[in-house]
Amino acid sequence: MIEKISDKVINRLTLYHCILQDYINKKKEFISSKQIANLLKIDDSQVRKDVNLLNKSGKSRVGYIVKDLKKSIETTLGFSKSKRAYIIGAGNLGMALAKYDNFSNYGLNIVCLFDNDQNKIGKEVNNKKILDIKELPVYVWQHYIDIAILTVPAQFAQDTAKFLVNTGIKYIWNFTPVVLDVPEDVQVWNENLMGNFLQFTYNIN
Amino acid sequence: MIEKISDKVINRLTLYHCILQDYINKKKEFISSKQIANLLKIDDSQVRKDVNLLNKSGKSRVGYIVKDLKKSIETTLGFSKSKRAYIIGAGNLGMALAKYDNFSNYGLNIVCLFDNDQNKIGKEVNNKKILDIKELPVYVWQHYIDIAILTVPAQFAQDTAKFLVNTGIKYIWNFTPVVLDVPEDVQVWNENLMGNFLQFTYNIN
Repeated sequence: MIEKISDKVINRLTLYHCILQDYINKKKEFISSKQIANLLKIDDSQVRKDVNLLNKSGKSRVGYIVKDLKKSIETTLGFSKSKRAYIIGAGNLGMALAKYDNFSNYGLNIVCLFDNDQNKIGKEVNNKKILDIKELPVYVWQHYIDIAILTVPAQFAQDTAKFLVNTGIKYIWNFTPVVLDVPEDVQVWNENLMGNFLQFTYNIN
Repeated sequence: MIEKISDKVINRLTLYHCILQDYINKKKEFISSKQIANLLKIDDSQVRKDVNLLNKSGKSRVGYIVKDLKKSIETTLGFSKSKRAYIIGAGNLGMALAKYDNFSNYGLNIVCLFDNDQNKIGKEVNNKKILDIKELPVYVWQHYIDIAILTVPAQFAQDTAKFLVNTGIKYIWNFTPVVLDVPEDVQVWNENLMGNFLQFTYNIN
């Protein structure tokens, strides 16, 4: 059994996974810790330390075996434990996320979108239907859904969250710039774009 | 002078900032560390520790003064040092980011978008023009731009990054799921959505 992996390591492992996918696309069989480290501008000892946390690293004398290392990251991070999610808000951001095919590779299965705009309801995006938000309580009762992805305009975020909580949702991936007030047993992951941006630009003069 | 602030603290401070903005909208004058902590489900001693890093906390006997604390976070994190950026890729994600008015509150000024789709070129989104990507080298030579926000499809990410680097860009905010290979002096911030998602769901059974 592996130890619980920290958020920073999870973040790096998914970046390694992106690099490995790129290597597979280019039909490259092996990769060294140095090659990964150079792309991410980190130290190669860090890469080796992270990879050592995985069950199997797929190490050979000429570097890691790309396919094995990729598989190992997937197993460790639980990509195979598929999660079902819906998107609330079929605006540009909701549509972008619905079109993002990469999610399913990571075990995130977006089943549909909800909106209150009659011009959008009934349409499809990337084979996912846009449903009337009024139908949501019945829909989630019939189809088990783990995660709500919240992409509504900021002014509707808190009310929408309250509505979702009343339908029994326990996990909200929040893309709005609003800190949601939800009960103790509901977990929110704030996709804090401005926080990320400021971490990036804090050092730009 | 303040010490260099860690990424985790920057992330939390921007979430406090969201909460303070909400309090201002609701015309509330004071906020306690406990109220902030409860919304984010963290310990209030953590909030007090973070606030102590700011130049001025705006503390009164009935809690922090909302406007002063907000102002103090803005000063500390350099919201006033405005950065100019353009978006590469006027798809759903690029459009969503162009429409996100909140950015300017944090000192991020998106001046225009670039795309190669003739149906999009010349149109406007949120008062920002969509320009032909061929015009980019001349445009950035005429208008000083700090940051490129990359939202092109994954298969074009590396080539686009190379093109941008050749025009002299030094900072790329990368929303594609591709780890970019760029020279040593170019900084990339990977908006690693899947990494964030996996940090969130790692504990969901």
